[in-house]
Amino acid sequence: MTEFRYEVLAKSGNGRRGRLHTAHGVVETPVFMPVGTAGTVKGMLPESVKATGASIILGNTYHLMLRPGAERVAALGGLHKFMNWSGPILTDSGGYQVMSLTDLRKMSEEGVTFRSHIDGKQWKLTPERSTEIQHLLDATITMAFDECTPYPATEELAKTSMELSMRWAKRSRDAFQARTGYGQFGIVQGSVYPDLRYRSIDALTELDFEGYAVGGLAVGEGQEMMFKVLDFTMPRMPQEKPRYLMGVGKPSDIVGAVQRGIDMFDCVLPTRSGRTAQAFTRRGTINVRNARHAEDTRPLDVDCACPTCTQYQRGYLHHLFKAEEMLGAILLTWHNIHYYQELTADLRRAIEEDRLDAFAADFHRQQAEGDIPPL
Amino acid sequence: MTEFRYEVLAKSGNGRRGRLHTAHGVVETPVFMPVGTAGTVKGMLPESVKATGASIILGNTYHLMLRPGAERVAALGGLHKFMNWSGPILTDSGGYQVMSLTDLRKMSEEGVTFRSHIDGKQWKLTPERSTEIQHLLDATITMAFDECTPYPATEELAKTSMELSMRWAKRSRDAFQARTGYGQFGIVQGSVYPDLRYRSIDALTELDFEGYAVGGLAVGEGQEMMFKVLDFTMPRMPQEKPRYLMGVGKPSDIVGAVQRGIDMFDCVLPTRSGRTAQAFTRRGTINVRNARHAEDTRPLDVDCACPTCTQYQRGYLHHLFKAEEMLGAILLTWHNIHYYQELTADLRRAIEEDRLDAFAADFHRQQAEGDIPPL
Repeated sequence: MTEFRYEVLAKSGNGRRGRLHTAHGVVETPVFMPVGTAGTVKGMLPESVKATGASIILGNTYHLMLRPGAERVAALGGLHKFMNWSGPILTDSGGYQVMSLTDLRKMSEEGVTFRSHIDGKQWKLTPERSTEIQHLLDATITMAFDECTPYPATEELAKTSMELSMRWAKRSRDAFQARTGYGQFGIVQGSVYPDLRYRSIDALTELDFEGYAVGGLAVGEGQEMMFKVLDFTMPRMPQEKPRYLMGVGKPSDIVGAVQRGIDMFDCVLPTRSGRTAQAFTRRGTINVRNARHAEDTRPLDVDCACPTCTQYQRGYLHHLFKAEEMLGAILLTWHNIHYYQELTADLRRAIEEDRLDAFAADFHRQQAEGDIPPL
Repeated sequence: MTEFRYEVLAKSGNGRRGRLHTAHGVVETPVFMPVGTAGTVKGMLPESVKATGASIILGNTYHLMLRPGAERVAALGGLHKFMNWSGPILTDSGGYQVMSLTDLRKMSEEGVTFRSHIDGKQWKLTPERSTEIQHLLDATITMAFDECTPYPATEELAKTSMELSMRWAKRSRDAFQARTGYGQFGIVQGSVYPDLRYRSIDALTELDFEGYAVGGLAVGEGQEMMFKVLDFTMPRMPQEKPRYLMGVGKPSDIVGAVQRGIDMFDCVLPTRSGRTAQAFTRRGTINVRNARHAEDTRPLDVDCACPTCTQYQRGYLHHLFKAEEMLGAILLTWHNIHYYQELTADLRRAIEEDRLDAFAADFHRQQAEGDIPPL
C-alpha cells in the first residue's frame, strides 16, 4: 500500500515542482484538478479527462450528499467506481457551497443547518458529518469543514470566523478515519490580515494535516489582493506539505500563484467556459459564438495538440454553439481542460529547468498579443 | 476511384446480406444509419459513432441549409470535413421536414416555399435546389426530392401526391451531378395502395437510380400496416440495387423489414431515446430515470459489450439523469447506437448463415421476456 506523502523535486524562486503519492496514484505538481461536481466532469467521459493529462479531480460534498446521497455512493462502491475514475479524488467539505446559500442556512457552533437547493428539504452539516460523508465517498483527499470568510470582512469578523474554522478543523481532524494512502487537508483562513493568517497556520500545523489549503480567496478580492495575501502567507506555510489554493482560477492566477509556491488548484472555469463557448488559448480567450468565427477554417489554437484543435475548424465549433448542439460544449470543455493541463505541465518543466519567471514573462506577453487574425 | 455499386452476398428468405461500395468507404448491409441532423450525431464524438460499428450516417438537408447553410459547409470543405466524419453520408432531400411545417409552407408544382423554424425567414426548396444543396454538402448518397404522402390518404390523394413526387424525381435525377463513388436514390410513394406503389416503382426504375427508398411509411400507420405495404412492395423493387426504408424504426420494425428485403435504415430513436433516459436492450427498453434503478449495480444490458455497459452501473446512469448531467445522454446514446449496430450485425450474420427467421423468433422471444429483476 502506498503511503500518502509529498516530495519537493525542484524549486525555481518560490515555485515548487513536487510529487504527491496517494492510494489512487501519483500526482505531479503543480497540478490543476478539473471539477467533477456531481460525480462527473460535465460533458466529459472520464477517459477523456484522463487523456488531457489530468491526474486528480475534485468532487463536491454538498452536491453528492444531496444527490445521490453519500450512503448511496458508498453502496455503489464509492465515488471512484461510481463515476469510473480510478485516479485520486479530492472532495471539498461542503462548507463553501453551504455558506453561499445565504438565505437558506443557519450557522451555530455545532455546524450549519440549511435547505437543499433541489427540494427545500432541511439538512445539517457539521465537521463530523462532512468528514464522514467524504469517508463514505472514499475521497483520496478529505478537506476539513470550515467557514469560508466572506470578502470584504472587518478584522474582527475575520478573526471570529477564522477561530470558528480552527475549532471546526480540530473536530474534522478528530473525525478523520486515517487509511493508508489517504490524506486530509486543513484550510488556512484569516482574510487579508497577516496576523490572522499566521495564527490560522499555527493552529492547523499543530493538527499535523497531510496538506494545507489557502481558503477565503478567489471570492471577489481581485488578483492583486490575492497575490498580496499569498505573498505574506506562503512563506509561513509548512514547506514539506502540499499547498492548495481553492477555487483558483484564471490561467494568469495559476501562473502567479505557482510563482508564490502553490502546488494544487481547482476551478470550474475551464469546464463552465467550455459550455458557454469560451475557449482558453495561448493568446487569450476566444468566444466561438462570435460571428467572425463562422467561416474560419483555423483551429481554436494553432499551437494546441488536443483532439478539438487537431480535428475541428472554428467554423464548425461556431455552428455547434449556434445550433445548441451538445458536441460544442464537449469539444470546448475538452480543449479547455487540455489547455489547463498543458499550462501546469509547462509550469512543471519551467520549475525543473529553473526558469519559472522567464516562463511567466513569456506567458503574459503571449496572452497580451491576442488572437491571430484569420488568414 | 471506387465505383458506386451494390452486391448481394447472401440471402435468407427474402432477407439480403449485401455490400455497398462508395467513394467514402464500404457499407455492409443490412445497415442502420445513426442520424446526424445538424452536422453532429447528438452527444457523440464521430470516433465514438464509428466505435459502435456504424459505417454510414445521415445528415438533414433542411437543417443544414438553414444553419450553417449549404454554401458555408461547402466553403468549409464539405460535410465530411466539417463534422470530421470520413465515412459515407446519406442526406435526405429536406422534403419530409418541409412538409411537416404544416402551417408554414406553400406547395406548388415548382416546389415548396416555407418559413424557417429558426428565424421565420422565407425559403424555397425545389427538386433542383435540394439536389444542389446535397451536392454542396458532398453527400455520398443524395435523395430525390419528394412529397411524403400523409397517412391516412385516400387513393385519389395518394395518386396525386405520388405523381407529383415522380415528376420531382425526374427533375431531381436531371439535376444530379454524377461523380464516381456517389449515388442518388429515388423514393417509392403510393401510400397503402399496391397499384400506386407499382406505378411509382416503374417510374423510378426508368430513371435508373443507384438505389431505391420506400417512403411514406413510419408516419403513423403502425407496424402491421407497414409490413403489409412492404409485403406487396418489396417483390417489385429492383433486386440488384440497395433498398432503404426511411425513418425506421424500433428494433422489431428493423427485424421485420429485413425479413422483407430492406437493406438500409435510419431513425432518431436510438439518439433521441438516449437523451430521454430510454435504453434499448436485448430484453426490451428500460427507462433509467425509474427509481428502481437508483441502487442497481448491474449494467443496462448484461450481454452488451459497449463502454457504457462494461463501465457503468444503472445506479450511476440513474443519478446522471436525475442530476441532468450531459454524461447521462452521452452514455445512453452510445449504448443505444451500439445496440442498433449489434442488431444489424446479428442480422447480417443470421442471413449469411441462412437462419434469419430463427434469429427473428429468438429476438422476439427475448424482447418479450423483459428486464431481469435485480439480484
